Amino acid sequence: MQFFSDNAAPVHPQVMQAIIDADAIDAPYDGDALSQRLDAAFSEVFETEVTAIWVATGTAANCLALAALCPPHKGVICHRLSHIEQDECGAPGFYTHGAKLMLVEGEGAKVAPNAVTDALAAIRDDVHQVQAAALSVTNGSEYGLTYSPEELAALGALCDERGLGFHCDGARFANAVASQNEKRGASPADLSWRAGVDALSFGCVKNGGMNAEALILFDRDLAKDTRYRLKRAGHLMSKGRYMAAQLLAMLEDDLWLANARAANAGAALIAQAAGKRLLYPVEANEVFLTLGPGEADALRAQGFDFYDWGVVTPEAGGQARFVTSWSQDAGAVQPLADAIAAL
Amino acid sequence: MQFFSDNAAPVHPQVMQAIIDADAIDAPYDGDALSQRLDAAFSEVFETEVTAIWVATGTAANCLALAALCPPHKGVICHRLSHIEQDECGAPGFYTHGAKLMLVEGEGAKVAPNAVTDALAAIRDDVHQVQAAALSVTNGSEYGLTYSPEELAALGALCDERGLGFHCDGARFANAVASQNEKRGASPADLSWRAGVDALSFGCVKNGGMNAEALILFDRDLAKDTRYRLKRAGHLMSKGRYMAAQLLAMLEDDLWLANARAANAGAALIAQAAGKRLLYPVEANEVFLTLGPGEADALRAQGFDFYDWGVVTPEAGGQARFVTSWSQDAGAVQPLADAIAAL
Amino acid sequence: MQFFSDNAAPVHPQVMQAIIDADAIDAPYDGDALSQRLDAAFSEVFETEVTAIWVATGTAANCLALAALCPPHKGVICHRLSHIEQDECGAPGFYTHGAKLMLVEGEGAKVAPNAVTDALAAIRDDVHQVQAAALSVTNGSEYGLTYSPEELAALGALCDERGLGFHCDGARFANAVASQNEKRGASPADLSWRAGVDALSFGCVKNGGMNAEALILFDRDLAKDTRYRLKRAGHLMSKGRYMAAQLLAMLEDDLWLANARAANAGAALIAQAAGKRLLYPVEANEVFLTLGPGEADALRAQGFDFYDWGVVTPEAGGQARFVTSWSQDAGAVQPLADAIAAL
Amino acid sequence: MQFFSDNAAPVHPQVMQAIIDADAIDAPYDGDALSQRLDAAFSEVFETEVTAIWVATGTAANCLALAALCPPHKGVICHRLSHIEQDECGAPGFYTHGAKLMLVEGEGAKVAPNAVTDALAAIRDDVHQVQAAALSVTNGSEYGLTYSPEELAALGALCDERGLGFHCDGARFANAVASQNEKRGASPADLSWRAGVDALSFGCVKNGGMNAEALILFDRDLAKDTRYRLKRAGHLMSKGRYMAAQLLAMLEDDLWLANARAANAGAALIAQAAGKRLLYPVEANEVFLTLGPGEADALRAQGFDFYDWGVVTPEAGGQARFVTSWSQDAGAVQPLADAIAAL
Repeated sequence: MQFFSDNAAPVHPQVMQAIIDADAIDAPYDGDALSQRLDAAFSEVFETEVTAIWVATGTAANCLALAALCPPHKGVICHRLSHIEQDECGAPGFYTHGAKLMLVEGEGAKVAPNAVTDALAAIRDDVHQVQAAALSVTNGSEYGLTYSPEELAALGALCDERGLGFHCDGARFANAVASQNEKRGASPADLSWRAGVDALSFGCVKNGGMNAEALILFDRDLAKDTRYRLKRAGHLMSKGRYMAAQLLAMLEDDLWLANARAANAGAALIAQAAGKRLLYPVEANEVFLTLGPGEADALRAQGFDFYDWGVVTPEAGGQARFVTSWSQDAGAVQPLADAIAAL
Repeated sequence: MQFFSDNAAPVHPQVMQAIIDADAIDAPYDGDALSQRLDAAFSEVFETEVTAIWVATGTAANCLALAALCPPHKGVICHRLSHIEQDECGAPGFYTHGAKLMLVEGEGAKVAPNAVTDALAAIRDDVHQVQAAALSVTNGSEYGLTYSPEELAALGALCDERGLGFHCDGARFANAVASQNEKRGASPADLSWRAGVDALSFGCVKNGGMNAEALILFDRDLAKDTRYRLKRAGHLMSKGRYMAAQLLAMLEDDLWLANARAANAGAALIAQAAGKRLLYPVEANEVFLTLGPGEADALRAQGFDFYDWGVVTPEAGGQARFVTSWSQDAGAVQPLADAIAAL
Repeated sequence: MQFFSDNAAPVHPQVMQAIIDADAIDAPYDGDALSQRLDAAFSEVFETEVTAIWVATGTAANCLALAALCPPHKGVICHRLSHIEQDECGAPGFYTHGAKLMLVEGEGAKVAPNAVTDALAAIRDDVHQVQAAALSVTNGSEYGLTYSPEELAALGALCDERGLGFHCDGARFANAVASQNEKRGASPADLSWRAGVDALSFGCVKNGGMNAEALILFDRDLAKDTRYRLKRAGHLMSKGRYMAAQLLAMLEDDLWLANARAANAGAALIAQAAGKRLLYPVEANEVFLTLGPGEADALRAQGFDFYDWGVVTPEAGGQARFVTSWSQDAGAVQPLADAIAAL
Repeated sequence: MQFFSDNAAPVHPQVMQAIIDADAIDAPYDGDALSQRLDAAFSEVFETEVTAIWVATGTAANCLALAALCPPHKGVICHRLSHIEQDECGAPGFYTHGAKLMLVEGEGAKVAPNAVTDALAAIRDDVHQVQAAALSVTNGSEYGLTYSPEELAALGALCDERGLGFHCDGARFANAVASQNEKRGASPADLSWRAGVDALSFGCVKNGGMNAEALILFDRDLAKDTRYRLKRAGHLMSKGRYMAAQLLAMLEDDLWLANARAANAGAALIAQAAGKRLLYPVEANEVFLTLGPGEADALRAQGFDFYDWGVVTPEAGGQARFVTSWSQDAGAVQPLADAIAAL
């Protein structure tokens, strides 16, 4: 059983069925009835009028958002470990035409308000230095931590005060919402526009989709230019109906939340088994833990695959990442939990 | 029945089945077995070693090719009516970081060697003017015409002589191959690398695919940078196996050619019915014809949908484009042919 | 005596003296007293509050203006023969991050309103096509013609109506103002903001400067971002006082107009001698004329240098361009006029 | 007397005279005899065949070099405090079309080989991460330290081994050469191509020039594209002769070294007076020192101007930067030295 990425999970059957059903629709690009329903469907989820645009990858969703919020000569504050900085091969630089990512630190890959104010304070207000235009955070973070509505709102208020746009990379937004909803009753709205978020990358692929993510624009003024940028980036699919179908299937009866809850539950069970091995509390569907000498090999020998987090050697062990997906709920991951407990 | 775009056609059942079957594979990005088979599969089709990269749209395939062949400070010669100039919202400018499209004219949206030499002659060889780095042609052209192997080879020889890279936009390459194969026994190799083409956008979506096109690099040195550019453009799908599956299904038993032949046959039947109304000979799956006063409405009243080519009015008529797809073979389009004949 | 470019003329003595005098000032970048006086000095010339920014070349002035008026995914309408299209090596593509130049035709390299409306009419209002964001014209034009206040105002009204920014490349703005002032009493204001121009490249180098042009922003909201773009393009001189000194010397006692009048007078005398040879009426400081077989060589043998306009051969003759500068007034060019008359 | 920037110094009289003399030359752009002599003149200085290109600012010189060495999808390793990262408003992102600056730390703003190898080791060799293409160092560094030939050669060897281009920002290269020549007999060649440097920004403006820097390409293959990029960036001056004149005057009888030695001597005298206040050894023309409460005000009250390095308050004091220029030799700075000694 593999735990190295939720990208490796299959497509959820209801999503696949929606794709198959989309075959009956015959309008090109995003002129089809499904694509036209996205705004309404997501507006209902978020309890406000939003513009929702399908896009094939999280990288594209993130970078279209950054391009909407930051002109080429300015910068975006983000965590040093954020996906946009670490794992997108410079896509933000491409989409924004060279804007700068301004890196801050923070426990568990989360950004705290004082990290932002410190970063801003270090920028001289003259034309020699790149000025900040936006903040981007990831919820759940690269270490699987989640922001509470209050934490996000504090950042949102700061953005508002300092004239920064606010983007949230929600590649695992579903897992974050499921987690914060269970803990604090937080809604999708609480974790986005009510906290001041202007643009959200709403992940679906890791959560049971095939190749459709949603870019949610709460600041709807950003929509018009973004549609042109989408086309200009080669991301306007000629058969968009198969994209929209996936997203609508995800929203239907809150499948997205059910899938995320299942994944979170799987991660929670692994976390329980991992105990003191944990590097971070497990709040969503990622588990980071310490493995002693030989333990990585021992787990792999039992058929469990996962991601070495940095250097892992048979002699010294190291750190590892386990990610669960919609099909790996508590029942499904029991064998891994047992194997970790038995190490 | 609709004829306004081959993008409106459904996914071919064999392609859909391949997508469903890909669910069993669990490797992310392009690390899966299907993606890894693409080079071999396309190398067989083209009778030479190629690098084949899946990409979600023809615009992305075209523009990744242009970026590989043209640095930011140079230009690409192409037809004034080409898709890259007319219909991609400036995507070439985005991907190439501002390189210039250098427009030439030519009957039926085809480029002739003398148009290229004239364009080159008009460029002063100094730093004040943008120098040409590549040529891009479309086969089948925007008016549904096809290049013969000889025509392409003449352009390829010219590119070779003048140090230009050579790109072919093959959004409807299958239809062009089917057409030229029938007429002249031309092979995919004859219509690409044997004629000097360095990079080919190999269309699948219009020909029965869902959202996977192939970028074929005959100059394999272009591959490494292109893979980075692909990721940087947000086009590295996290579940690439569903992309590769489509392409492999297309190649299986030459489904791509069978589909193209069916579409071409449909177009041929419409052409026969259109007679003197034709603006151009019909060589692939597009039919351009003249409609008299009231005729557009008359056809639409019978349930046929199509694309007004420029301004069409009930009083004066105008020009119209009909495109057939894999599911619209000669049998399927008979009603339209009859309706046109009866006008 | 050379007439091939006004770039070949020496620096006017008053400008050179101002440069020498600037040595006494010790503030870096544009913090010096001279740079700080530019807004006021140009505001007086233009009879309205403007932002004036020194910049080293006309290409930089033009392209900073275009970048201010056109986002990367849109386009700028301009004449096919305009300097930004023909002679800047793709600088507009660089500065605008890939925006498109949308070419129109027009007699004498001038743009007429109907050429603009035709260009706009040809753009489909969908995301597949690049939309226009601005218009750029050149006054005096590439053929030495000038726009009257009324002609410019008609374009400005159209821009206003259609939501286009309006840029004027005034590499030879001084010559245009001198000409239109003489003919119609037109003022700098009449030929800029009163006609709706948002940004003007105000040329000085060709008119007796060394290496300082002025970018005049009538829409002062464009200034802030432009200052960052200027720095980002490596155009913020570290000793800006030597730039500002040139511009202020030019404005002092209207030296810029005196210089332009001298150059225009020289061109007028050549035009008179050229008679029927003229390709265009001579309205500023450029003379385009037809030379018969052997005549180009005959003139060069007498020590006159000029620019072959296209192909000129001893057998067939051809067309030639003569440009006068501030030091080539009517008296100075008499020998050339005599030589042309004697051909 | 001001010490806040060497940009505030006047133009050296010999440079000014050369500018005045250039008035006699009448060829536009870089077609003049002076511009044509640059390659030879700099080749002599560097004891090897180089291409030398005038450019108006150090930012442009640096960024043209980076663009020549790094494609848009890769990155440049540099110090966190380097000018390209801190003080160019994102110009590297503009010129390279979004390439990434990869920051390393190092004492006194110098880069050591192990900082580079550590940075490289942290980059996964896959398409998700930006790969390094070049290294850029500054000699003299942002803290006025210089690299010895051996230190540079160690970096050059590493670049060679790892396939990195090697750029040196030499805004104060003259001061570095003067310093290393005095200490170790190092030549310009030793501090550039012999150590593996491919491209050098050779500063003149801070050293007595007006607005001409030189970009020296030891890898002459970089020259052709760079000339186009120069024009495309709006940096091809239309009267280049006034640029070339400055550079040639600087090289004449090694004026550039004489000027740098004078400035270095001035800094050395200040350093001597500063004693334990020094933050770094003074190797070139910059002095960084600690000021106690009230001392900054005390110095300014005596007419000395300088740059607060970070926050300086009357109560707590802070750090300050003093920069000397060609006109501030040991004799000239004696009053400042005395004032510092007397604090």
